[in-house]
Amino acid sequence: MTHLRVGIAGLGIVGASVYKGLFGQSGFKVTAVSARDKTKNRGIDLGGVAWVDNPIDLASRNDVDVVVEVIGGDGDPSLSLVRQALKNKKAVITANKSLLAHHGIELAKLAEENKVALCCEASVAGGIPIIKILREGLAANEITAVYGILNGTCNYILTTMERTGQSFNDVLDEAQKLGYAEADPSLDVDGGDTGHKLSILTALAFGCRPDFQSLYMIGIRNISAEDIRVADELGFRIKLIGQARREQNGKILQMVTPCLVPKTSPIAHVGGVLNGILMEGHLVGQSFVSGRGAGDTPTASAVLADLIDISRGKSILPFGKSVTELSNASKASFGDWDGIFYIRINVKDRVGVIADISPILRDAGISIESFIQRGRSATEQPVSIIMMTHETNGHNILAAIEKIKELDCVMAEPLVMPVLKI
Amino acid sequence: MTHLRVGIAGLGIVGASVYKGLFGQSGFKVTAVSARDKTKNRGIDLGGVAWVDNPIDLASRNDVDVVVEVIGGDGDPSLSLVRQALKNKKAVITANKSLLAHHGIELAKLAEENKVALCCEASVAGGIPIIKILREGLAANEITAVYGILNGTCNYILTTMERTGQSFNDVLDEAQKLGYAEADPSLDVDGGDTGHKLSILTALAFGCRPDFQSLYMIGIRNISAEDIRVADELGFRIKLIGQARREQNGKILQMVTPCLVPKTSPIAHVGGVLNGILMEGHLVGQSFVSGRGAGDTPTASAVLADLIDISRGKSILPFGKSVTELSNASKASFGDWDGIFYIRINVKDRVGVIADISPILRDAGISIESFIQRGRSATEQPVSIIMMTHETNGHNILAAIEKIKELDCVMAEPLVMPVLKI
Repeated sequence: MTHLRVGIAGLGIVGASVYKGLFGQSGFKVTAVSARDKTKNRGIDLGGVAWVDNPIDLASRNDVDVVVEVIGGDGDPSLSLVRQALKNKKAVITANKSLLAHHGIELAKLAEENKVALCCEASVAGGIPIIKILREGLAANEITAVYGILNGTCNYILTTMERTGQSFNDVLDEAQKLGYAEADPSLDVDGGDTGHKLSILTALAFGCRPDFQSLYMIGIRNISAEDIRVADELGFRIKLIGQARREQNGKILQMVTPCLVPKTSPIAHVGGVLNGILMEGHLVGQSFVSGRGAGDTPTASAVLADLIDISRGKSILPFGKSVTELSNASKASFGDWDGIFYIRINVKDRVGVIADISPILRDAGISIESFIQRGRSATEQPVSIIMMTHETNGHNILAAIEKIKELDCVMAEPLVMPVLKI
Repeated sequence: MTHLRVGIAGLGIVGASVYKGLFGQSGFKVTAVSARDKTKNRGIDLGGVAWVDNPIDLASRNDVDVVVEVIGGDGDPSLSLVRQALKNKKAVITANKSLLAHHGIELAKLAEENKVALCCEASVAGGIPIIKILREGLAANEITAVYGILNGTCNYILTTMERTGQSFNDVLDEAQKLGYAEADPSLDVDGGDTGHKLSILTALAFGCRPDFQSLYMIGIRNISAEDIRVADELGFRIKLIGQARREQNGKILQMVTPCLVPKTSPIAHVGGVLNGILMEGHLVGQSFVSGRGAGDTPTASAVLADLIDISRGKSILPFGKSVTELSNASKASFGDWDGIFYIRINVKDRVGVIADISPILRDAGISIESFIQRGRSATEQPVSIIMMTHETNGHNILAAIEKIKELDCVMAEPLVMPVLKI
């Protein structure tokens, strides 16, 4: 029996876990590895495996059939390695969402031209085979919407804020100390990581070219303990949701924002570092998956599933169809989002604030469903005005916020969150 | 471009929905159909499609590449049709769980010998691509357990009992009037349908031969409104769960029983007619999916996904590996189930009942974690004694129940339910 000969680029926790998973497995053999530090103890025996200093060299080795890229980053060496491997007719498995979000089309085209597999199950929600589910399991469905909790760090922070009543900054500090958040957390908490993953899911769900640039993206830094408490009282949880929807005007909207999710929705129950994705298809209705989205073994599970697909000869084109068949979807902006919004405005606590805000909302065509003002104080301290709108759209909201910001009594950029009906 | 020519056997709601889904689709063409009543109005235009009176004849038509069997039942005509189609080297797609539970090995072998696809995504949890998830998405995992809510009718009944406080019989009556339950509901409420589906999932999860015969099976007829209320107070919901687990002794246990599911588990939130499946794998940990399990379009979605796999040339062997590689798993009985049990005993309300029961439990090595007695009455009316055990196993429970049943004060077969820790 011939083995599939595997070269692994990157021996961090994922790479090492893939290595362990393949160790002694029949049908596969790791022949070469590359990582930054040869002397580091990773708890794996690299005996009999070639060490390659420059990962890009894995692309041209005769003893490698499949390159596993688990280095990360959308630039070199990952980009050159994947490009070169595909050109050299080697199958590639990558866990690199940022690479695919930025260069997915170019790489998918290279894979197609060279008739080799480019697999990326590990790039989104590691332990959940969401790429296979959208590309194959629900292939007959016209997908109308995808809503995902795709970043474990953000979900951990929001879940902890809810449980403890602490502020964002306090929880982030703790998460950094515990190693759950990076020293520079911006890729997570500002929504970029979720955005990378969402742009891949959007391409699969809607058959369009991944387009990270047209994503509307807001992170979770401005969520306060009060927002979470008020949302809870109203029957919602706050989650950072990457959503891709076909709006009423036919355009596809991609958006990463904190959202209010009804507690009756399965996605509201995705806690801690878990990931969860809710899909809506014209045949299946709502379908939901959840599980561990990151970490060594869940990500390795996805890489190994791709390897098994390759060994079975069952790999599908990365976006499910030829790059030439992918549409240039007409992209919607935040303004096109139809629905209900949660708005929090921090104002000076003085008489007449509501009288200032109300006409602006009226003129923008926004009607208010409920209204909460808390924490009134004797002096002119800031207080929050929290509102839930009736059905409206993002254009109206943006127009109103623009004017509300200019009011004398308004002390900070208002916070706007879509309220999901799922 | 050549079309895949499809013959559909059975034009009930699923068959008609598959037909509609394929209508005008490029790449596929329905060439022949068979159903009982040619004159029935199904809201589909059968013009230009051959009508075949005997479905088995679809197996030998030259204008059919793929036979879609959506007739149901584990006997003829389904069995002969699928057998003959495979022998004639036609791919087969079936939604027939009972056929696969009873004849899966024979049919999988025929498919292998004749090098044609036998696909069955629609046989379990229609709208959820659970077969693909287990067979491909989680292929690298050693699965340790699968827990599924696999029957929408039972879940609807239990959810409604919980919501309204009604009895099983009252809810069943209503469900029958609404068309949610069959006139003869036994296949659903006694667990058979769940068992058929579970035996397919067990084969996929553990790489063993499907073995419906060794399933332990209890339905939901004996669940009372009181059970649901007490479970709720203790933090649980009662669900009919098909579970397959590798027990501590290495044996595989397949069991369909009502279970207490902690409200913290995602599977506890699968309400109404929905299905949900929780899997545990050594790499991914817990992974969960939910969605619509039955009905016209969700089931059609699964059949169409199989057709797309076939047209892409990406079908996998039905159980993920060659029949010769499937193990004859060492099967566990109910006695091997390790864990906590819920026990309800209906007794005459007189002094000394506990004194009668306690020594029996002690002698069986069962210790009781909590104990509830409700509805004490002045006369010798029946009351329920409800107990939660500490960790024990099914052997001890069965031994104790055998003796408890013989007590004078015990008025009916005690109810035993496993308490899941998921």
